[in-house]
Amino acid sequence: MLMTGAPDDNTIRILFLGDVMGDPGRRAVGDLLPKLKEEFSVDFAIVNGENIAGGRGLTPKLAIGLMRAGAAVVTTGDHVWDQKEIIPWFEEEPRLLRPINYPEGTPGSGSVVLDTKKGKVAVMNVQGRTFMKMLLENPFTVMQDAVEKVREETNVIFVDMHSETTSEKVCMGWFLDGKVSAVVGTHTHVQTADERILPEGTAFLCDAGMCGPINSCIGMEIDSAVSRFITLMPSRNHVARGPVKVCGVLVDVDAATGKATAIERVQRMWEEPGSGTN
Amino acid sequence: MLMTGAPDDNTIRILFLGDVMGDPGRRAVGDLLPKLKEEFSVDFAIVNGENIAGGRGLTPKLAIGLMRAGAAVVTTGDHVWDQKEIIPWFEEEPRLLRPINYPEGTPGSGSVVLDTKKGKVAVMNVQGRTFMKMLLENPFTVMQDAVEKVREETNVIFVDMHSETTSEKVCMGWFLDGKVSAVVGTHTHVQTADERILPEGTAFLCDAGMCGPINSCIGMEIDSAVSRFITLMPSRNHVARGPVKVCGVLVDVDAATGKATAIERVQRMWEEPGSGTN
Amino acid sequence: MLMTGAPDDNTIRILFLGDVMGDPGRRAVGDLLPKLKEEFSVDFAIVNGENIAGGRGLTPKLAIGLMRAGAAVVTTGDHVWDQKEIIPWFEEEPRLLRPINYPEGTPGSGSVVLDTKKGKVAVMNVQGRTFMKMLLENPFTVMQDAVEKVREETNVIFVDMHSETTSEKVCMGWFLDGKVSAVVGTHTHVQTADERILPEGTAFLCDAGMCGPINSCIGMEIDSAVSRFITLMPSRNHVARGPVKVCGVLVDVDAATGKATAIERVQRMWEEPGSGTN
Amino acid sequence: MLMTGAPDDNTIRILFLGDVMGDPGRRAVGDLLPKLKEEFSVDFAIVNGENIAGGRGLTPKLAIGLMRAGAAVVTTGDHVWDQKEIIPWFEEEPRLLRPINYPEGTPGSGSVVLDTKKGKVAVMNVQGRTFMKMLLENPFTVMQDAVEKVREETNVIFVDMHSETTSEKVCMGWFLDGKVSAVVGTHTHVQTADERILPEGTAFLCDAGMCGPINSCIGMEIDSAVSRFITLMPSRNHVARGPVKVCGVLVDVDAATGKATAIERVQRMWEEPGSGTN
Ligand SMILES: [Fe+2]
Ligand SMILES: [Fe+2]
Ligand SMILES: [Fe+2]
Ligand SMILES: [Fe+2]
Ligand SMILES: [Fe+2]
Ligand SMILES: [Fe+2]
Ligand SMILES: [Fe+2]
Ligand SMILES: [Fe+2]
Repeated sequence: MLMTGAPDDNTIRILFLGDVMGDPGRRAVGDLLPKLKEEFSVDFAIVNGENIAGGRGLTPKLAIGLMRAGAAVVTTGDHVWDQKEIIPWFEEEPRLLRPINYPEGTPGSGSVVLDTKKGKVAVMNVQGRTFMKMLLENPFTVMQDAVEKVREETNVIFVDMHSETTSEKVCMGWFLDGKVSAVVGTHTHVQTADERILPEGTAFLCDAGMCGPINSCIGMEIDSAVSRFITLMPSRNHVARGPVKVCGVLVDVDAATGKATAIERVQRMWEEPGSGTN
Repeated sequence: MLMTGAPDDNTIRILFLGDVMGDPGRRAVGDLLPKLKEEFSVDFAIVNGENIAGGRGLTPKLAIGLMRAGAAVVTTGDHVWDQKEIIPWFEEEPRLLRPINYPEGTPGSGSVVLDTKKGKVAVMNVQGRTFMKMLLENPFTVMQDAVEKVREETNVIFVDMHSETTSEKVCMGWFLDGKVSAVVGTHTHVQTADERILPEGTAFLCDAGMCGPINSCIGMEIDSAVSRFITLMPSRNHVARGPVKVCGVLVDVDAATGKATAIERVQRMWEEPGSGTN
Repeated sequence: MLMTGAPDDNTIRILFLGDVMGDPGRRAVGDLLPKLKEEFSVDFAIVNGENIAGGRGLTPKLAIGLMRAGAAVVTTGDHVWDQKEIIPWFEEEPRLLRPINYPEGTPGSGSVVLDTKKGKVAVMNVQGRTFMKMLLENPFTVMQDAVEKVREETNVIFVDMHSETTSEKVCMGWFLDGKVSAVVGTHTHVQTADERILPEGTAFLCDAGMCGPINSCIGMEIDSAVSRFITLMPSRNHVARGPVKVCGVLVDVDAATGKATAIERVQRMWEEPGSGTN
Repeated sequence: MLMTGAPDDNTIRILFLGDVMGDPGRRAVGDLLPKLKEEFSVDFAIVNGENIAGGRGLTPKLAIGLMRAGAAVVTTGDHVWDQKEIIPWFEEEPRLLRPINYPEGTPGSGSVVLDTKKGKVAVMNVQGRTFMKMLLENPFTVMQDAVEKVREETNVIFVDMHSETTSEKVCMGWFLDGKVSAVVGTHTHVQTADERILPEGTAFLCDAGMCGPINSCIGMEIDSAVSRFITLMPSRNHVARGPVKVCGVLVDVDAATGKATAIERVQRMWEEPGSGTN
């Protein structure tokens, strides 16, 4: 375990948690995020909240909950607009991000730079296009310009790339290698095991996985998800219940250069208090 | 590490390696497969060979190479027909599989049952449909019937589910839980970190990952893959070079019941002899 | 104009109207269908009703309305299940069809054979798969068997192929040429101009078009449809208002052989009474 | 027939022909285009040539052939780069267009303004994104700026929108209504029957259809196209033979205002000399 000791003063330790699924995910993250931050001496925590409102989007209240639990920034993805009340709230809360590759004039922002004790940390949120329903602007060309701008303020840049295919995320990792501190994917709700630091110093993980019930189909009830593949009929799908796994990743970043020095996946089981078999 | 000791006589240890990418993957697997089999006391090895011919399909010669290296069965996926000469060879070699959910009359078979010292082992190969170019028959209904038939011969059944999305693979895992020994995904070329044994005894891993060059975009050269996302123009893509990672999974199966008793991911680096920096 | 006179006793004249869009489409068809039937001496009318409930599915009441207006059969498509209350009603009304290529056990039927004064007429409804969200069973193999069965009862068979791409519909036309009387496409909401009788006697039209407001984006309000392509944000879309065009096709079929003898497209403008500029 | 007489001096009559399919389409257009131009007193002809090289792209030689036959401008679409030798030729021939919504730096141009006896005529070529394999830049925002620029030179603007879905093309028509003279779709290879002049003066047709063999699946051989839907296996597909239909559209444009005053679809059968049954 690389990250048991506290990082030194020149190292910013970032914890990122993947898509939080509904109430079970929310409760698990509310409970575990403060503990994980302490356990790993985390300097800066980011959480993807696109599925916290019953699997579909997020509300100001739910985003505030994530921030109170310790998230400095909440990222999102294709579900960002599912709850209409979040739209005006983007104007009030710069620490809530939506994918950066929406056209100009879209509510909210896709990046934010925050001050920390160890220096400025930027978070960027971008969405892929392959097999995604809504075709945003080209994530590569948008990021090229946007990263350059952010780098005028800080080299410590964490990117949440919300995307379906491995190839688009892997290419983004290589594309931004040496320009950002980390590219971590979200959206598939299954954590990948390909964490590494690319040659120019960018930490990469294809998908952080979700924070949601393990006995589920990527967070939703199994029965209706499976039966939809068989009956081919639409069916209401609800967030599943039961034990939750909180999935994410720790990245150590050199505060001066913005280069990643370590990356480590995190998976932590959580059960509703009182739900045990004792 | 669960699997360092040899399995007992009632346990069949299966090693599965994900999509072998071109020449680099072929050489790495040719070298490492025998070593991994010995190191882990593997009883039965399966390799997905759909990308071994320069990333596109496989030839009889290349499939024979995988078998000589120790693969009892070679599975495939959407690239199965890329090399035309493989088509007639399916009739000769029952240990080469294509996805089972092609219509009747398609060359080859999607399942095979083989005798081993510890009893019969079945391998099945099925392809998902979501976001896949060629829309095969319903993998769920096809597997329902096919698994039942195979179970008349053996309970020890390993399934390679070749599929794009996590949801379709996870649902197949739940759908077959208790009916097969393992459901392991392929096709995304990135190993996932969600290995587990489902409640009814089926080992599950969303994707085994690939056996291919690590400095690549899921096996192909980085530059042309990245530039395609930026220029939006088609470009010839070749298998990348350099150090290879061999990715797969070990599954221990109770020979009598067919239930999985352990699952463990495998990742092993390999470099071309003489390619080192010394 | 081929079809002004009444057909002879051995000729069954079928009128098919494409997807009826919401209230405007419903009122236009309610008014024009009886008139068109009389004007063209139609023996048998079929209407696709998948969008009649505000663009999304249909209810028993709305289906009954189409039948009262003169539709012998109501066909549907991918929107068939949008209104849940239609599901049980399928059991009561065999003249309401859903795509035939759902798996066994699905509510409703994809074909019906009805008696007419000039002999039995069959209607079949099948859904394509390319670019369609829900991947039904293979429409070609399903139709091969289903058509054979229906032909035991009658050679007069009208097929509504609900599908996105021209290639899938054109191929279905060729595939069924000589086996059914007509293959007419629906779903794109734009009438095509490729009507013809294929060499073996099957009338073909790639898409019948819709019965809906002309100042619209395939039936929905223009502004939100256009702005969605620009803002890339989801937006509520409502059925548009204003003048309606009723689109469909007339097919003459030899009652004995089931061969089509004529095909002619129909387009008829309709305006809400009292909405004129007088 | 609106367009039998010659247009007056203030009216520019434009003939547009849809995707020319392979050799049969090339020969038919080579023969018919001069005749159609004369018959309809056409001032300006445009031909989509994206499929002229055996269905896949075009070569300089083939493009020159279309121009010699009377095309002032040749437009393309998603197949534009299929023949590599066309790429450098774009720099030499401004009358060959590729979709305008490629990023800056892409070879070629998506618009051209040409002098005619009756004034300047602009042609623009843009590609849709829904269900298209290569995701170009947003066609709406790109066209918004590009049209404005072209309008500094002329109001007479013909747009070839190469796109799969009706909704994307219809929305483009509404989006550009009053800003360009005509928006005509290509790519589906089936002519639609929805020609009209939109309220602000833009002529619209969802798809012009192809210039190719009628006994085909959108230009390709029937047998392999149909069998691919049944066997689900890839198969080589060739351009079909036999009688050809040349499909396109005539648009009359007011030379001063750029408003369309008439639109009329064209379909003309053509048979290889000597191929008749006499
Ligand atoms: Fe997502
Ligand atoms: Fe998500
Ligand atoms: Fe694959
Ligand atoms: Fe693969
Ligand atoms: Fe539809
Ligand atoms: Fe529809
Ligand atoms: Fe095209
Ligand atoms: Fe084309």
